[in-house]
Amino acid sequence: MNKYLKIDPWCILEEGFDPKNHRASESIFSIGNGRFGQRANFEETYSGETLQGNYIAGVYYPDKTRVGWWKNGYPEYFAKVLNAPSWIGLDFKIGDEILDLAKCKVHKFTRTLNMKKGYLQREFVAELPSGQQVKADIIRFISMDKPEVGAVEYKISPLTDNSTITVTSDVEGRIKNADANYGEFFWDEVNKDVSGARGFLTCRTRKTAFDVCIGAEVKADINGNTIELKCQNSQEEKYVASIFSVNVAKGEVLTIHKYASVLSSLYHDKDKLRKNADLVLQDAVKTGFASLLDTNIKVWDNKWEHSDITIEGDDEAQQGIRFNIFQLNQTYTGDDERLNIGPKGFTGEKYGGSTYWDTEAYCLPFYLCTAEQEVSRNLLKYRYKHLQKAIENGEKLGFTGGAAMYPMVTMNGEECHNEWEITFEEIHRNGAIAHAIFNYIKHTDDKQYLVDYGLEVLIGISRMWRQRVNFSEVKGKYVMLGVTGPNEYENNVNNNWYTNTIAAWTLSYTLKVIEIVKSLDQSKYNEIVKKAAFDEQKETTEWTDIIENMYYPVNENNGIFLQQDGYLDKEQLTVDDLDPKIRPLNQTWSWDRILRSCFIKQADVLQGIYLFEDRFDTETIRKNYEFYEPRTVHESSLSPCIHVIVAARIGEIEDAYSLYLRTSRLDLDDYNNEAHEGLHITSMAGTWMSVVEGFGGKRVRDEKLVLNPLIPSRWKSFSFKINFRKALLSIKVTNEEINIYNESDHTASLLIYGQEYLLSGNNNLVVKK
Amino acid sequence: MNKYLKIDPWCILEEGFDPKNHRASESIFSIGNGRFGQRANFEETYSGETLQGNYIAGVYYPDKTRVGWWKNGYPEYFAKVLNAPSWIGLDFKIGDEILDLAKCKVHKFTRTLNMKKGYLQREFVAELPSGQQVKADIIRFISMDKPEVGAVEYKISPLTDNSTITVTSDVEGRIKNADANYGEFFWDEVNKDVSGARGFLTCRTRKTAFDVCIGAEVKADINGNTIELKCQNSQEEKYVASIFSVNVAKGEVLTIHKYASVLSSLYHDKDKLRKNADLVLQDAVKTGFASLLDTNIKVWDNKWEHSDITIEGDDEAQQGIRFNIFQLNQTYTGDDERLNIGPKGFTGEKYGGSTYWDTEAYCLPFYLCTAEQEVSRNLLKYRYKHLQKAIENGEKLGFTGGAAMYPMVTMNGEECHNEWEITFEEIHRNGAIAHAIFNYIKHTDDKQYLVDYGLEVLIGISRMWRQRVNFSEVKGKYVMLGVTGPNEYENNVNNNWYTNTIAAWTLSYTLKVIEIVKSLDQSKYNEIVKKAAFDEQKETTEWTDIIENMYYPVNENNGIFLQQDGYLDKEQLTVDDLDPKIRPLNQTWSWDRILRSCFIKQADVLQGIYLFEDRFDTETIRKNYEFYEPRTVHESSLSPCIHVIVAARIGEIEDAYSLYLRTSRLDLDDYNNEAHEGLHITSMAGTWMSVVEGFGGKRVRDEKLVLNPLIPSRWKSFSFKINFRKALLSIKVTNEEINIYNESDHTASLLIYGQEYLLSGNNNLVVKK
Repeated sequence: MNKYLKIDPWCILEEGFDPKNHRASESIFSIGNGRFGQRANFEETYSGETLQGNYIAGVYYPDKTRVGWWKNGYPEYFAKVLNAPSWIGLDFKIGDEILDLAKCKVHKFTRTLNMKKGYLQREFVAELPSGQQVKADIIRFISMDKPEVGAVEYKISPLTDNSTITVTSDVEGRIKNADANYGEFFWDEVNKDVSGARGFLTCRTRKTAFDVCIGAEVKADINGNTIELKCQNSQEEKYVASIFSVNVAKGEVLTIHKYASVLSSLYHDKDKLRKNADLVLQDAVKTGFASLLDTNIKVWDNKWEHSDITIEGDDEAQQGIRFNIFQLNQTYTGDDERLNIGPKGFTGEKYGGSTYWDTEAYCLPFYLCTAEQEVSRNLLKYRYKHLQKAIENGEKLGFTGGAAMYPMVTMNGEECHNEWEITFEEIHRNGAIAHAIFNYIKHTDDKQYLVDYGLEVLIGISRMWRQRVNFSEVKGKYVMLGVTGPNEYENNVNNNWYTNTIAAWTLSYTLKVIEIVKSLDQSKYNEIVKKAAFDEQKETTEWTDIIENMYYPVNENNGIFLQQDGYLDKEQLTVDDLDPKIRPLNQTWSWDRILRSCFIKQADVLQGIYLFEDRFDTETIRKNYEFYEPRTVHESSLSPCIHVIVAARIGEIEDAYSLYLRTSRLDLDDYNNEAHEGLHITSMAGTWMSVVEGFGGKRVRDEKLVLNPLIPSRWKSFSFKINFRKALLSIKVTNEEINIYNESDHTASLLIYGQEYLLSGNNNLVVKK
Repeated sequence: MNKYLKIDPWCILEEGFDPKNHRASESIFSIGNGRFGQRANFEETYSGETLQGNYIAGVYYPDKTRVGWWKNGYPEYFAKVLNAPSWIGLDFKIGDEILDLAKCKVHKFTRTLNMKKGYLQREFVAELPSGQQVKADIIRFISMDKPEVGAVEYKISPLTDNSTITVTSDVEGRIKNADANYGEFFWDEVNKDVSGARGFLTCRTRKTAFDVCIGAEVKADINGNTIELKCQNSQEEKYVASIFSVNVAKGEVLTIHKYASVLSSLYHDKDKLRKNADLVLQDAVKTGFASLLDTNIKVWDNKWEHSDITIEGDDEAQQGIRFNIFQLNQTYTGDDERLNIGPKGFTGEKYGGSTYWDTEAYCLPFYLCTAEQEVSRNLLKYRYKHLQKAIENGEKLGFTGGAAMYPMVTMNGEECHNEWEITFEEIHRNGAIAHAIFNYIKHTDDKQYLVDYGLEVLIGISRMWRQRVNFSEVKGKYVMLGVTGPNEYENNVNNNWYTNTIAAWTLSYTLKVIEIVKSLDQSKYNEIVKKAAFDEQKETTEWTDIIENMYYPVNENNGIFLQQDGYLDKEQLTVDDLDPKIRPLNQTWSWDRILRSCFIKQADVLQGIYLFEDRFDTETIRKNYEFYEPRTVHESSLSPCIHVIVAARIGEIEDAYSLYLRTSRLDLDDYNNEAHEGLHITSMAGTWMSVVEGFGGKRVRDEKLVLNPLIPSRWKSFSFKINFRKALLSIKVTNEEINIYNESDHTASLLIYGQEYLLSGNNNLVVKK
């Protein structure tokens, strides 16, 4: 844990420069717009510890894998989000001294992430080795309005002496991924040109051949008086720069505006990339910094209007939740079904920027409630479009007949991960993909999705489950051997309760969806049957047999669902038995010790109880919560949010609150000492869930929106908005009442504390507690 | 399977050159002398498919590891036997054509490994692109007499025209390991010099700083008339060469003798390496090729005298067993306790040339019976000297109080392996190390070894087992969770019967050894107690409790010992159910499918039954054999030999014979399509065991040598020798009788077919069957 940031409801604030925190801050102050994003690297030279990172959505590289010992079925590559050419570079020489905060005395340093307005600001006074002091005030943003534009305003002023300031504005393509497995460069230059204050660099990824063109132009003024720039230019392999010098008197302010256009071949023909980058850049320059920033703020206003959660009486909690929502909104905007949400978004390289089950299990609920229906639909279609690859992946592992094994980690539908216990065994991800369809339909009632896309995916996954179980003669039941559940602190276990549960559920749901699709569109159903070579009679009979005879490990004495066979053979300890000094366990214990221990990385049985809550009475939920929560170390960022929701479900509001703080401020307070690697973007959606589904008690049941709010004692109120079917509900919870305003024209069917309500459009409902 | 070699009792013969077999032949025809060895690479240029390999015992490199995802406790490096600078190079230009069998028509090619005499021979007629034909006859050996000397005789004769033959004799240090994880060079040059026909190259391994100096000198004659060589010299980085040209008339024979000295800093001061290499080389040159070869043959005669197994009536079996014995003898000579036996010896890079449990479980029995007691004692001391490292390795994994966790793979006592399921879990290796002590004592009666070394190792290992089990409240027994047994086709299992068995046995044996050491040398015992901080009362009480309450999974219905918890939940198939086309499974099935299947890679329960046979009645052994043999795919080379022994134990002689053929000709007939990677050296000792312990029924029980021979129907007789305590017994088994001659002066106590005999020195015993 490292709590060095200031509390503020709308901003993240760092005061004073401590190089030890810089890499974490580079992550935390990251900005992006769904199309591209970057870590909060300094514009100017910085020779201290840093992780440079610029990332462009959908642009990846299949790095050669590293494995200890090859296993059949492993993928050949691990796709990685690429550290892309950087457009932010603005280097300064003050006289003949390079401005480099690692080599200056730094005074009055502040770094601000203005979440309301969507920009990054930094101020400092740097005392150079010569004694010269300069003041700087920098604003940077990536436009939410113009998705291919970024801009920097860099104000710099000599405080002690007049100075000749030499500015180098560059586009830098000589970058590597810090996690490149073999230290290779992933980019080749395609073309470049630079003239005066404008330069362009086009690079191409090796192997995948994505082209990215970056254009940049600088403008400058002193105290508001535009300077005619006489630039020298510099070109090197994968590098262009414009360089100029200006005499700046003590106290004068030199303002540089750097505009950049960042285009990729996902959106442009390669042969038009350079030209279009020019057009986008010209437009940005013409619009000007102030106006660009202004429209950016307007888009953010709109985002906040729909997705904000307010918490009165607890600024720490307020800042935490807004930080999570802010990062989610700048990572994924949902307008392109080819894109998805990497666990670190645009904030770091870890996890390769690829798609995990996080998307379906954690992110979807957020976008379902806070964004247009199309956004969630695009997330689902992403997997539909990968169905054929999932079938091929299944074949690679020995499955047959159209069984779909979705990958653990993917960019394009192909598996990237290669640790056998995850790649081949953490197959519950397929259940999450199936459940996301269920969740989407429940929320939107868009049953046409099942006809158009959903059923095919469900058949593919169900076929996989069918082949993945086997009938145990000794148990007289279907068992599932050799899996890894959500709790990755156990590997290759038999009969993981969660996986068996979601597998059987998938089979049941597929049977239901078959009936829905038949009833909606028999001819499309016939088409699907043909396309998938679906033997309805035989396959559904087999599925039904599995549903009816699946084995679920349970402690017969007390009804606790057992995470897997043999869980109770472990020495039964609780987290209280652990010396806090050895936490997190994954940083101090050897892997075998972790595996042998009873400690659980993340919600596993409770993840299943969360998903299938309706099946269990409160007493059963409580028993399992009380058994598993003390054994859970929450060393996955995806864990505490689920426990919040389950704790709230059984009325354990203070438990829920302390777990909530952990999830909402995970990165801000760096609980697991890993913020320097990037942020836990996907778990941020879990934080949102923990407020809305945990404290808000939001569910969807029997076509109704269910709310059972509870409020932590430290809060005066909290409020959030929910899209539900066609209604848009603004919900405020205080200690006394729940106030719901239906902002739409559509009536919403509600169930609040067990009482049914119909709330018509543009109307208000107050339910006293 | 690829059966292309000719059958001969004393030679391995390849006739005709097929480049497809060349890499396998390079492995099979490997030669060595325990100090250094090499694959049967051609002396002359060969541009076809080849794996170049020269290896020097004890010279290793800690290559940076490759892992998919780092786990706490992993070692930083994987030590590798190094592909060392090569001394064999003799390149030929015939006129202006390079002699390169990949670019010639090759006639009359034969390759012979003369196992009796210990040399490699090759003959061919090569038709060059110009039509010129040359005949070559090459003999190469690595001296068993002079451990730092190798020599080549290369006779070459133009058949069609007179030719100017240009010969380049080099020492080549610009070599890489084919398995280098990052394609790096592992050697740096220290110095080199070349003058006339003699050159020296000293290279140093990076990181480990082993120095190796190779000296080489060539001599030449035509038709027996010595030529005064006028050599030109060539030097490049890590390369020296002597080059000369000779006019050779059609039909004349140019004979090159190349002598080499191969010295390493394991045996010489670094600053004397060059000088000593010169001395060794001068001595070799002075001795001359014929005389060097002659003394080499004499040493081999002596080796065969002690270790040969003869089989009458079955040349295929005869060739197979001799090939195994030959390879074992040229891999390890037992005179240096720093050395050990890599699974591929000097024949390939795979498995890094490091020490595995193969040594204790498979190799030790061979050397115990066929070599001086000192050889086995050195193998044991190797582990004693690594005890401190094993304790440190244990600490790294979270063990405390002097618990020794011996590594899975090691060069210097440190763990090299990093796959968690092996590194951290395949801990039964510790049991094999303990059992080797027991086996050694049983065989030699050298109880002083327990006092001097053995007890300390046993205490360390017992402490590890103590901490590695935990008490299961639900079972009311001690369980061992998260292990990988000998059957690596299951990982991270609970209560592997073999591991639980050998763990409890280790504890029992340690208790016994404590009493033995106390009775032999109480003061040394007190020293050990102090050194190991051994709390006898407390620790032995804990061990006794574990011994008495260990859990062993068993099928209550039929008494079959279960490989691990849940084994019977698997779909129960047998090998007969498998399409032979998918064998070996590890080449066609994905890893998860292998893990989920009931198929067993290698003896696991049966390995335990083999080791602790005396505990079980024949019926129990039979039941388990009949259960497991049909489920065992024998995809480890270490597997069939154990099944031979168990099959023979229960009288299944024809089963035993067919399994024997598989083990003895594993590489010669390339059963698993992997001979090109190198030979299965350590399993070759298992082949020896399968004859002596399987067909010979050799055991040691109650201080007596037990023999219960059976003879396969195809054999007329078989014979072998055994060192037992101070006696040396030559044993011949025919269909009618067992004939034993005691070659020593010491009386041997025997138990043959249940009948006791005392056989005094220099006497014969005939037991009629």
